[in-house]
Amino acid sequence: MSRVKLAVIPGDGIGPEVIAEAEKVLDAVTRGSDVTFDKTRFSLGAGRFLETGDTLTDDDLAAIAAHDVILLGAVGGVPGDPRLTNANIERGMLLKLRFALDHYVNLRPSKLYPGAPGPLVDPGEIDFLVVREGTEGPYVGNGGSIRTGTPHEVANETSVNTAFGIERVVRYAFAQAVRRRGKVTLVHKTNVLVHAGGMWKRIVDAVAAEHPDVAVDYVHIDAATIYLVTNPARFDVIVTDNLFGDILTDLAGAVTGGIGLAASGNINPDGAFPSMFEPVHGSAPDIAGQQIADPTAAILSIALMLDHLGLTAEAARVTHAAEQDIAERDGSARTTAQVGDAISARLRA
Amino acid sequence: MSRVKLAVIPGDGIGPEVIAEAEKVLDAVTRGSDVTFDKTRFSLGAGRFLETGDTLTDDDLAAIAAHDVILLGAVGGVPGDPRLTNANIERGMLLKLRFALDHYVNLRPSKLYPGAPGPLVDPGEIDFLVVREGTEGPYVGNGGSIRTGTPHEVANETSVNTAFGIERVVRYAFAQAVRRRGKVTLVHKTNVLVHAGGMWKRIVDAVAAEHPDVAVDYVHIDAATIYLVTNPARFDVIVTDNLFGDILTDLAGAVTGGIGLAASGNINPDGAFPSMFEPVHGSAPDIAGQQIADPTAAILSIALMLDHLGLTAEAARVTHAAEQDIAERDGSARTTAQVGDAISARLRA
Ligand SMILES: CC(C)[C@H](C(=O)O)[C@@H](O)C(=O)O
Ligand SMILES: CC(C)[C@H](C(=O)O)[C@@H](O)C(=O)O
Repeated sequence: MSRVKLAVIPGDGIGPEVIAEAEKVLDAVTRGSDVTFDKTRFSLGAGRFLETGDTLTDDDLAAIAAHDVILLGAVGGVPGDPRLTNANIERGMLLKLRFALDHYVNLRPSKLYPGAPGPLVDPGEIDFLVVREGTEGPYVGNGGSIRTGTPHEVANETSVNTAFGIERVVRYAFAQAVRRRGKVTLVHKTNVLVHAGGMWKRIVDAVAAEHPDVAVDYVHIDAATIYLVTNPARFDVIVTDNLFGDILTDLAGAVTGGIGLAASGNINPDGAFPSMFEPVHGSAPDIAGQQIADPTAAILSIALMLDHLGLTAEAARVTHAAEQDIAERDGSARTTAQVGDAISARLRA
Repeated sequence: MSRVKLAVIPGDGIGPEVIAEAEKVLDAVTRGSDVTFDKTRFSLGAGRFLETGDTLTDDDLAAIAAHDVILLGAVGGVPGDPRLTNANIERGMLLKLRFALDHYVNLRPSKLYPGAPGPLVDPGEIDFLVVREGTEGPYVGNGGSIRTGTPHEVANETSVNTAFGIERVVRYAFAQAVRRRGKVTLVHKTNVLVHAGGMWKRIVDAVAAEHPDVAVDYVHIDAATIYLVTNPARFDVIVTDNLFGDILTDLAGAVTGGIGLAASGNINPDGAFPSMFEPVHGSAPDIAGQQIADPTAAILSIALMLDHLGLTAEAARVTHAAEQDIAERDGSARTTAQVGDAISARLRA
């Protein structure tokens, strides 16, 4: 009998709705098995900020870090809410977790499941993995402004990139490629961001030299968005920086039938900190509380979490149940709970 | 009788092929009119660099700047050519021109022409204009690295943004929206790049207050890529920074039937420097010299150039002829020259 300490952060908007279904599925797949999840619930996000003025305190962080894994719904208040102007829940909570817990791999698989309503006329087979760097690049918060609010304002944002940070995520990407179709594509903008891009390129080339069995290519970020709609089948593993990965994975979600299906893991492969699993989508406050959000992305994030914990059989069962559910969708409306119930029922069957 | 001094830079790869057709069209539309283009040809790009070691000398720049307008094909050598490793034709020539000639508006219209083979099942009506800032942001070349090539390398890239630079391009975008469907969408990543993004947002809000007739909204860059494939009809004028504009316009080209149709202008609206018109696509060395490149993007760039020069009737005739050509394409192969000939013939008819 093994026990896993799971921190659950439902968050804002549709977060609590989709997380409820993800928990149902987790219960269903572990029922009768010899693993038990001991859950602690954390109330964090815009809602908590509006109540208490806190985004993520040191105590919150320490308490969360004491868990084995984290399940996150989505955070973020209603856009334009004047009470949140200076809050920046994204930086103060979501990115703070990713950075503090050294989630240097942001793992985002993209797959066009049979039956999923993709927007492309001729998508071909889509099945790739984006390995997005999670702790560097333009996301480091290294910016500032002078003469703010005047006609002479200057605002800078500095992307910080280290060989240490890039090499570890590049190695992770190659390890994934070896277990998949043996191809790594670096996406960057080396012709403009020559210093950061040059370092990425050199490190990929060096790691490639150790992997003669892995095919390697390079695509600029602008061209990569073209390929995502004209020839997504060309990709197996994409490795890229924090910002380019953010952009590509939203687009990848769209071409595979909507970000209602896109799962992700914020992973610390070293195991020094708990990894965190979350749907790629946001809190979507405009549709919150209506039971119309698709919980599939949150449910597939459970599969990524189980896989990360080494519970590969359970992970495969969740993925399979979700895939079957997707394949049998006929476009008729179901509530968020009905989707979660249907997938859970398949797991209990 | 008016005379226009035109600098022509065919460049590398397919550049010379598509520019030859653009020139044909320019000849056809101005034949018998009272405007004459006096052309000077500049040999620049990777080819020139390999011959002479120069990318863009001060003399080149001064000579080009003495013209009224510039027509550019595309520049860039064969990817991976070891002789070009340290050349960076893009930074040393293309971006140097854009910056030196203060091309602060990078104008990139996106339209799904009837008959164009778009990749989307249900594209809706696509007709928007990206106003991409051209002289700031992550493109300023403000980067560097230490301990380069060692395991302790750190490489930074700084995005520099000024209120002066943003306000002028935002005002341009609003002026375009007034002449179009009256909507401006700011695309940025304000939740991560809080300083640069915050300034963009404040300036857009301030200019919006002077334009109660223009509807304004904001979309993160990641979400914008989703909208481009799920609901591109929601956009009228997009205003955005240099890097986000680069990414969005390649994707926009793809969703409107390929970057073989995407035209652009690098514009100095003040008239202090000549503006430069170019297809969005690159030099595509892999298909160069085969007469299979589509010259339509270069030809539509001629329309943007004529419009910029106030030759609006001529501009409209070129656009119309290209649109008719696109509408009547049946998928059978034509050479680059045949497409140029067909569009020129329509103009002479
Ligand atoms: C909310 C935001 C800060 C976040 C990001 O940019 O990483 C989100 O878009 C994501 O992709 O998880
Ligand atoms: C060649 C490159 C520097 C350029 C850019 O990034 O601006 C190109 O992609 C473009 O869009 O014109």
